[in-house]
Amino acid sequence: MVNLPKNIKKVAQFLELLPGIGEKTANRLALYFLRIPQDTLIEFAEAISRLKQTTKLCQICFNLTENEICSICQDSNRQKNKIMVVEEVLDILSFEKGGIYQGVYHVLHGRIDPLNHIGPEDIKIPQLLERIKNDNTIDEIILATNPDLEGEATAMYITEKIKDLAQQSKREIKISRLGYGLPIGAEIEYADYLTLKKALENRSKY
Amino acid sequence: MVNLPKNIKKVAQFLELLPGIGEKTANRLALYFLRIPQDTLIEFAEAISRLKQTTKLCQICFNLTENEICSICQDSNRQKNKIMVVEEVLDILSFEKGGIYQGVYHVLHGRIDPLNHIGPEDIKIPQLLERIKNDNTIDEIILATNPDLEGEATAMYITEKIKDLAQQSKREIKISRLGYGLPIGAEIEYADYLTLKKALENRSKY
Repeated sequence: MVNLPKNIKKVAQFLELLPGIGEKTANRLALYFLRIPQDTLIEFAEAISRLKQTTKLCQICFNLTENEICSICQDSNRQKNKIMVVEEVLDILSFEKGGIYQGVYHVLHGRIDPLNHIGPEDIKIPQLLERIKNDNTIDEIILATNPDLEGEATAMYITEKIKDLAQQSKREIKISRLGYGLPIGAEIEYADYLTLKKALENRSKY
Repeated sequence: MVNLPKNIKKVAQFLELLPGIGEKTANRLALYFLRIPQDTLIEFAEAISRLKQTTKLCQICFNLTENEICSICQDSNRQKNKIMVVEEVLDILSFEKGGIYQGVYHVLHGRIDPLNHIGPEDIKIPQLLERIKNDNTIDEIILATNPDLEGEATAMYITEKIKDLAQQSKREIKISRLGYGLPIGAEIEYADYLTLKKALENRSKY
């Protein structure tokens, strides 16, 4: 079969490794690279080569960082007693975009998922418990795992463990889960019944 | 606003230049790069840096190539008297995948699009006419521009020009356009009426 020139094909084959990009899209994107100025391409190539060496996980919260401690954990204006537990680094960005949260985070880098052989030890749960144990000022945990089966199970597991820890060390630690309900701008007609059930349960007085 | 580490952001910002990739997808893809082995990243970076230097347009048909003449034009088994005119390089791949065409191609690199100020001289139409003029063995042109307004206008323009050329040089040149109708596997319920109209006009005896 006739194919694209070797170097374009190489770029396309790499792009195909990325999630959600199939062969056709990869080919189209690779051809698009030809229209981008050479300077930009070189800069991109350099950023890619350096990517792994310059990126580390924050020693406190496991967010991505170029230093030992991430910018959020370094920020003295953040409330260090409040930890929001999220599955992935990008979840932090979503909260930070709105500037709606002033505490700090803990990134699990995954969720408990028995079907894919991912247990509590495979993600940053032991590190979370250790962190809470070692810092007596922490008194609130907000569980912000995704609202699905695995996210729910992960939140429940963490809740149990923190309750045990609080009881043993006679500390008061508030634990909460993000609220469920209709997303803003949604249409009831298209909402699934589980969301509607939660929205009904969590209805607020008017 | 808190953001991703600088190098990841740089990769994400580049990916955002690509068509169909927004900020969220770009961030997600850039993070995914971290999971790819360093060797593969380096290889990708090198392919990107070399991309433009090693890629040329075929001097005959304007397909992409790493040499002066593309592999299709070099292939002595292809029928050189038959030229299929396509808008983009990727259109060639679609035909080649099926192995359904034995002639050669001519890539326009665009279509006539007055609203975007793209005229016949801005794409490879003059080169096509020159090619036909200089090679007396060419006796069939298949117009495979896209089945939309601009593709149709481009096909009509080229037809006129080739007819003139054939008349002037007293040559016999067959000109055809790809057939219109229902795509294989389509459902009539969801077909638009213009496609159905064409399918009705082009119905075949049973």
